[in-house]
Amino acid sequence: MPTYTPTERTQVKRLPKRAVYDKAQVHAILDEGFVCHIGFVMDGQPYVIPTLYARAGERIYFHGSAASRMLRSAGDGVQVCLTVTLVDGFVLARSAFHHSMNYRSVVVLGSARLVTDNAEKREALHRFTNHIVPGRWEEVRQPTEQELKATSVLALELNEVSAKVRTGPPLDDEEDYALPIWAGVVPVQMHFGEPVPDGRVPPGVYPVDTNRLRSRGRNGAEG
Amino acid sequence: MPTYTPTERTQVKRLPKRAVYDKAQVHAILDEGFVCHIGFVMDGQPYVIPTLYARAGERIYFHGSAASRMLRSAGDGVQVCLTVTLVDGFVLARSAFHHSMNYRSVVVLGSARLVTDNAEKREALHRFTNHIVPGRWEEVRQPTEQELKATSVLALELNEVSAKVRTGPPLDDEEDYALPIWAGVVPVQMHFGEPVPDGRVPPGVYPVDTNRLRSRGRNGAEG
Repeated sequence: MPTYTPTERTQVKRLPKRAVYDKAQVHAILDEGFVCHIGFVMDGQPYVIPTLYARAGERIYFHGSAASRMLRSAGDGVQVCLTVTLVDGFVLARSAFHHSMNYRSVVVLGSARLVTDNAEKREALHRFTNHIVPGRWEEVRQPTEQELKATSVLALELNEVSAKVRTGPPLDDEEDYALPIWAGVVPVQMHFGEPVPDGRVPPGVYPVDTNRLRSRGRNGAEG
Repeated sequence: MPTYTPTERTQVKRLPKRAVYDKAQVHAILDEGFVCHIGFVMDGQPYVIPTLYARAGERIYFHGSAASRMLRSAGDGVQVCLTVTLVDGFVLARSAFHHSMNYRSVVVLGSARLVTDNAEKREALHRFTNHIVPGRWEEVRQPTEQELKATSVLALELNEVSAKVRTGPPLDDEEDYALPIWAGVVPVQMHFGEPVPDGRVPPGVYPVDTNRLRSRGRNGAEG
């Protein structure tokens, strides 16, 4: 079972029983999520920006346009933290103190590389698109060289990685179990609504089957 | 219409038409979300950690335990970035390039203050609990002084704040509208499942009504 090697910076110190370094589990979390939060530093101030990403084997590509101020300031090789969080449930305990959240999160530390080669950019856009809707890339108009040039993509290797996972019911103090208070988990799920066409879809062109979205992240992203 | 004043650091430079500084809109986003991503710097490395939060007027309280390494290293007055992101839809365009996301996000910059007073900690826990499930605080066993002591809470004032919002259909290049490709928005929603009791709920104690969760963030959090 291949794992990431914890470093001083990724060793989970608080609640270490929630720590996960198993590559397969980390990949599964990354493949299910689609928005990451990128942290970077500018003039000593941390910034955290949401952006789209996709995994390609042991590499993550993420959209750099939202983080353009980072790119302008740091150019190549900027230190980042990429965090992906999936919320699975509200954990309602009998005491206020033991309320919690069931979640799975991945933290990746490293130096992000600006992708400059158009072929690699195209590959990253391919991954972004099919990460959101499997098969979508094959249906849409492909990017031109000009569009590729206008797209900022960054690459981050999965070297320094940790995950944290909480599952299961609340853990109450023994004496609180006698209280007449409901306790358990309220599941939280991502739900995809009925697709809403824009005003200019030609007759006979059918919407995306939302079952394709529900299959997201199930097939892995090795490569 | 009260607004936050953009600073050099919160002025949205890319796609400024998506920028929002209106306080009521910022508050609504903060009240609908429940997980924030906290960015902080340690030894020059940015870290981004998910944690629970709640708003109290023009202040945000967030759980500090997950960010304990930050507290250990920086003590009081640590520079943070608190980001909340709500995803509303996948925006599927006719070209790969114009694919996007409908979302609402808030970024708060500032210096986080460690809450040390037990009365203020209790108020923060009250807000955390009822932010997740309105009315839950009034039903559960209240925290002891010992539990309050064991809880890390940080406070961040809403001074340097910006939001970004994208809504609506994809915007395709004019010549692409003739293509036989479906385009529009797939709505993404948070869905609450049926509550799952733990194994020790006494008979006759009924689960949390999930309608209470659905009313989350609708009543504001002024105070």
